[in-house]
Amino acid sequence: MLQDWLGPKAAALEARGLTRRLRARAADERLIDLAGNDYLGLASDPRVIEAAADAVCQWGTGSTASRLVTGTTALHEELESSLAAYVGQETALVFSSGYLANLGVVTALGGPGTLVVSDDHVHASLIDGSRLSRSRVEVVPHNDVDAVDKVLAERNEPHALVLTESVFSVLSDEAPLIELAAVAREQDAVLLVDEAHGLGVTGGGRGSVHAAGLAGLEHVIVTMTLSKALAAQGGVVLGPALLRDHLINRSRPFIYDTGLNPAACAAALAALWVLQDEPERPAAIHSAAARLASACGVPSSSGAVVSVPMPGPREAVRAAELCLENGVRVGSFRPPSVPDGISRLRLTAHAGLSDEDLDRACAVIVAAIGEVS
Amino acid sequence: MLQDWLGPKAAALEARGLTRRLRARAADERLIDLAGNDYLGLASDPRVIEAAADAVCQWGTGSTASRLVTGTTALHEELESSLAAYVGQETALVFSSGYLANLGVVTALGGPGTLVVSDDHVHASLIDGSRLSRSRVEVVPHNDVDAVDKVLAERNEPHALVLTESVFSVLSDEAPLIELAAVAREQDAVLLVDEAHGLGVTGGGRGSVHAAGLAGLEHVIVTMTLSKALAAQGGVVLGPALLRDHLINRSRPFIYDTGLNPAACAAALAALWVLQDEPERPAAIHSAAARLASACGVPSSSGAVVSVPMPGPREAVRAAELCLENGVRVGSFRPPSVPDGISRLRLTAHAGLSDEDLDRACAVIVAAIGEVS
Repeated sequence: MLQDWLGPKAAALEARGLTRRLRARAADERLIDLAGNDYLGLASDPRVIEAAADAVCQWGTGSTASRLVTGTTALHEELESSLAAYVGQETALVFSSGYLANLGVVTALGGPGTLVVSDDHVHASLIDGSRLSRSRVEVVPHNDVDAVDKVLAERNEPHALVLTESVFSVLSDEAPLIELAAVAREQDAVLLVDEAHGLGVTGGGRGSVHAAGLAGLEHVIVTMTLSKALAAQGGVVLGPALLRDHLINRSRPFIYDTGLNPAACAAALAALWVLQDEPERPAAIHSAAARLASACGVPSSSGAVVSVPMPGPREAVRAAELCLENGVRVGSFRPPSVPDGISRLRLTAHAGLSDEDLDRACAVIVAAIGEVS
Repeated sequence: MLQDWLGPKAAALEARGLTRRLRARAADERLIDLAGNDYLGLASDPRVIEAAADAVCQWGTGSTASRLVTGTTALHEELESSLAAYVGQETALVFSSGYLANLGVVTALGGPGTLVVSDDHVHASLIDGSRLSRSRVEVVPHNDVDAVDKVLAERNEPHALVLTESVFSVLSDEAPLIELAAVAREQDAVLLVDEAHGLGVTGGGRGSVHAAGLAGLEHVIVTMTLSKALAAQGGVVLGPALLRDHLINRSRPFIYDTGLNPAACAAALAALWVLQDEPERPAAIHSAAARLASACGVPSSSGAVVSVPMPGPREAVRAAELCLENGVRVGSFRPPSVPDGISRLRLTAHAGLSDEDLDRACAVIVAAIGEVS
């Protein structure tokens, strides 16, 4: 039965060179990593590790229930207040994943009375949140402020939510936040900015909303992930206290999910402290990204990710394999993970890369691209 | 703007006595806990803690990316193969939360060609998965096998997915799994059983699907959470290898989410070993649940949760507060978390409760119910 149902789909994917397979990492591998999202190099930092291990001993291995029952510890609250203060927001609310944070806030604000205006390049979790919210959804061209203005002005719904990212995940380009916030204010809408790739990277680490002077405005709310720059797991929604209270009472992916485990809370908090103590770390990301972009002959990006277009999905996969054989792990983007259908190598710059690592990585990547193109 | 939007909703909730607020646990509190879902008492077990702390040191504090990039470690694979073997399934695939596991499998199997038949009492994550899947959804009365049969027989869609739970979360009653599996087979449908409250509890720990002799059948697939009996975080989908491959390639909440953190993987794996080494633990849950049910004058339940109906939401909250003041933490269910609108006390039996704890808890709870009723 499942064979009849799923077998032909699997065969069709395979024929197009798009089958994805999991490949497990070993603990002792020695590779130059340009694939993971540990932007600040903190997932293996002794201070962050110690904090997580201590939290497991002190708080146990799980949060044990929904945040509304026994799943909120003092650690969760400390993480929320510290992160909110760092990025200039009134409150924060931690979810067990960034995916659920985005689903949770869009569904809690969406519904028949809300128009959702969604940039064409936003993350899958925002798209799924929009669909799940039962709102009318208008998808607008990427970074097109006039299109946002137009659909907001023409709406019949009393409320509207505009979805964008500060740094987009695939192309690593930035949204015109100041212009979007101005349009949202004028049209009585709320702007939701996903800073998954901004936190720890842009604005000296505090993200693009803070850098743009928009942090703390009532009509600009933010989501972030704890699993990239903060080296942990989970997601967070930041904004006015009224929003946090609303999510606690109305957001199904918050209410009906087990709270984030103590190890992840403590790791994110410790990573935040390191970021505050060592504010030079984000600049190291940009410096590494610029070197990678230059070596590959592509423009510099605003975020940590350097995207290198490839002729097709097979070439992207083959180039990544060649890099791996030579000690450098890079990512690849293939459809449906790209907004424009173009397969790419995805190189992620980290603050922890040495000059020697970068020299080696650039040489290996350029050779691999040359071999498959 | 947000004030105008959300303020009236908050006031309306408050007026109905339904406002939820977070209350953080302290690390050093000394309470008898009947609220959390740490069914086997393993979240503070030294063996599970040691495994999680070791994993943080060995693997780092985060999985660093999607499972498809660098987010799969050897730990994830060991957890998946061990858990699948324990419950008699061919494969398992770990998600970062149980909510996402349910969303992930329902959306990956759903769509216009699939009818979703959903029991009236299933978890929010299955409901959201159904909505998000864009399938036609038929909600059938609770545990009504004939109704399932009827809608399956009358469908026009080539595929169908029947959603149920082995042990339901609120009333802790069981689904007629054997009958549902027979109907599904006859009607060429797939039965999805959420064993969030079955794993570690029913069937000697292996869950109700295993106990019913349905484990490993091609048309019966299972989801579980790692955050209850296994004292960690995350969710898992179990079934044939073809299903796992399909999810890796098609499930957006799997593909676009950061992998579960190493601490949670290791904790779940260690908890599974304890469960296998100490197969008497599940029986201790049932014994404790029977004592709680008897003291409160409600029928025994199939799972770890004992639900005690209360006159209304305010009485449920007040009784829970009285228990807390007397050293016993219990949960409460209020609308919209109950399928029938009846507010309840939610008492969760744990394998780790001593006789003295149970005596004390029963006395406190009975007194609290008496005081508010």
